[in-house]
Amino acid sequence: MREHLAKYLVEFIGTFFLVFTVASAVLLGGDGVIAPISIGFALMIMVYAGGHISGGHYNPAVSLAAAIRGALDWRELIPYWIFQVLGASGAAILVANFATLPEVGACPFTLAQVIIGEFLFTFALCYVVLQVATSKKTEGNSYYGLAIGSTVTVGAFAVGGIFCLGAFNPAVAVGLGLIHSACWCGVGVIALTNLVAAICAALVFKFTDAE
Amino acid sequence: MREHLAKYLVEFIGTFFLVFTVASAVLLGGDGVIAPISIGFALMIMVYAGGHISGGHYNPAVSLAAAIRGALDWRELIPYWIFQVLGASGAAILVANFATLPEVGACPFTLAQVIIGEFLFTFALCYVVLQVATSKKTEGNSYYGLAIGSTVTVGAFAVGGIFCLGAFNPAVAVGLGLIHSACWCGVGVIALTNLVAAICAALVFKFTDAE
Amino acid sequence: MREHLAKYLVEFIGTFFLVFTVASAVLLGGDGVIAPISIGFALMIMVYAGGHISGGHYNPAVSLAAAIRGALDWRELIPYWIFQVLGASGAAILVANFATLPEVGACPFTLAQVIIGEFLFTFALCYVVLQVATSKKTEGNSYYGLAIGSTVTVGAFAVGGIFCLGAFNPAVAVGLGLIHSACWCGVGVIALTNLVAAICAALVFKFTDAE
Amino acid sequence: MREHLAKYLVEFIGTFFLVFTVASAVLLGGDGVIAPISIGFALMIMVYAGGHISGGHYNPAVSLAAAIRGALDWRELIPYWIFQVLGASGAAILVANFATLPEVGACPFTLAQVIIGEFLFTFALCYVVLQVATSKKTEGNSYYGLAIGSTVTVGAFAVGGIFCLGAFNPAVAVGLGLIHSACWCGVGVIALTNLVAAICAALVFKFTDAE
Repeated sequence: MREHLAKYLVEFIGTFFLVFTVASAVLLGGDGVIAPISIGFALMIMVYAGGHISGGHYNPAVSLAAAIRGALDWRELIPYWIFQVLGASGAAILVANFATLPEVGACPFTLAQVIIGEFLFTFALCYVVLQVATSKKTEGNSYYGLAIGSTVTVGAFAVGGIFCLGAFNPAVAVGLGLIHSACWCGVGVIALTNLVAAICAALVFKFTDAE
Repeated sequence: MREHLAKYLVEFIGTFFLVFTVASAVLLGGDGVIAPISIGFALMIMVYAGGHISGGHYNPAVSLAAAIRGALDWRELIPYWIFQVLGASGAAILVANFATLPEVGACPFTLAQVIIGEFLFTFALCYVVLQVATSKKTEGNSYYGLAIGSTVTVGAFAVGGIFCLGAFNPAVAVGLGLIHSACWCGVGVIALTNLVAAICAALVFKFTDAE
Repeated sequence: MREHLAKYLVEFIGTFFLVFTVASAVLLGGDGVIAPISIGFALMIMVYAGGHISGGHYNPAVSLAAAIRGALDWRELIPYWIFQVLGASGAAILVANFATLPEVGACPFTLAQVIIGEFLFTFALCYVVLQVATSKKTEGNSYYGLAIGSTVTVGAFAVGGIFCLGAFNPAVAVGLGLIHSACWCGVGVIALTNLVAAICAALVFKFTDAE
Repeated sequence: MREHLAKYLVEFIGTFFLVFTVASAVLLGGDGVIAPISIGFALMIMVYAGGHISGGHYNPAVSLAAAIRGALDWRELIPYWIFQVLGASGAAILVANFATLPEVGACPFTLAQVIIGEFLFTFALCYVVLQVATSKKTEGNSYYGLAIGSTVTVGAFAVGGIFCLGAFNPAVAVGLGLIHSACWCGVGVIALTNLVAAICAALVFKFTDAE
């Protein structure tokens, strides 16, 4: 029991700090370098801090990919999702109540751009996670957190602001939706795209990881 | 005796360079990327340089968390604190005497913002330190310095300038207080918040690290 | 058969995301920090994700250097080149069709500048790859992706905008040529320079790696 | 014989690319983030590429510290210095001949500022090198290049532009002197300060590394 609770607590803490950083970075606005780097680093530190306990997902799409790959017990999937969304919501509410929010206009992206952007880098994220954190051939490495966190940094640079906002994570999408109601309309599309990308990444991983 | 002095010397050197970098970054002002990155890197290099000798704390709150967790002898706590504050003070005085200081206005943050910001990321810092540098499950890894230093980077991005200045470290607070008297009023609040956050992180660690 | 296809798929995916990020960074323009960091990180994450399967080249010049060094079967060289160019082309076409392209003027560099810039950092890239990813003396390390990706970051900072565009990779050159026809004239020169640099790096490696 | 030549070649290549990057970063000017990050990364990649062959010094001060510590044969010190200065000079001459140089005014720093800045971070650099790359307690780690390169990044942020230019390396000082004759007056002071700092760091290391 305690072992399970420890995992959920770690997922809660990690998603909390990830979304807190995302929300702050959105508030900081301005400089295009801050958000990608701070969000990627936030994921990295939490992956290193909790990876050995819960797997360090902090992302319902990653948990789904891990379950398909056999790295997460299917019975843990729903509890993981719940604690991830709770952590994201807690962070979003905290930021929304203690910081001054800027005005946000309508989303400037087309639906196709959002789906392509979210699909590509959620795929990349799940692909990287499975390769560096669950493959026997890379076991015991020290770079998994750096690689996983940096994937979000690259995604935020590569498609954020061009194709989409760059959530790559249904929990992050929910968190942003709680902060700006204008984002709510896209949460469902983003979350569904993220989950489809996770399934594709798990299938590609299984093809490349034949033992 | 020499072994003890070596530890104190390492803590002195590390805190000196950390606070020297913080003080310089504050002087550089302007660009919002420089301070978080340079301060995080400064902590990282000193953790890698001295972690195997003293634990590489350079932070009274981290030393407290390490003592609660059983990774630091309680009798070492006060000497560590003294040498950390000495290193921080030396750096602050050096910078204050050899560089031109900008004018600083009154603190623009509310007390609640400062306490939330300092609590959250001192908690994150101590949580990350205990997980990556003192847990048996992560022993022998090469990422601990990267994870620990980057936590301060993330904290500085996430709450620095929005919730607080982002010290996450009583020695840094003292150093900044020595440079700008306007900062003194907050040193006590920051230091106390940091120590409370350290205690919470140690308790969470103990819960998640059951063997 | 499946093992071969897995390698080609990994090279395709890695080159796709590398060139997608390059193309997006070119679109983002403006800030001189974004392109070097995002491109270097993109290479790093794909090296970590696929290095244990295909070697993680994503670059025809690197594959040539690996073949000369004996780390890649010569019969794999042409298939690798094909899938690398396919991945690069796919990414370039996707970006060109879904994002708004800025106007590009004539190339401001002299031929000598382009050749020096491309030669130097393709040499550095292949030299670093061979030393950190194929030398027995560095086997099992966790830094190879960081070192390889960062070499492109350094190259983009050091010669990008001063000596040349900074491709260091024939597949990237082809990708950029597909996006901006103004770049086509240089693709042949860049690709040839990259391959010559790869040969030089392989020879230097062989001299320094005597066992 | 070949083994010795391989070491010198590696030191030549590494110092060449380090100084080439320094020189380019100086040319790029403007943004305060580019120089510290690109120079630190340049040192990091060359340390990872050549550390297992020559020790990866690329810096006469680091070679002196290594000799005092017993990690470099004293008979190698002068050859190392020669090839380091040759690499630095080659890079400086190449950049000076193929890129457009900006005007440089008189040095805005006092002698005391230059000496303090150069002393502190050359000390930090040698201290970090000895701790992470020559101590038995940290043997086999994967972070040494990251820690060493980042020390130069931190130094460039912390004292570059406030206390001095931030060479922390006599070979870099010579290279900058070859590019801008206005820098020549300071080369001797910088080099001497660097060597004194190296001696201090070696003594501190010996005190802390008692076995």
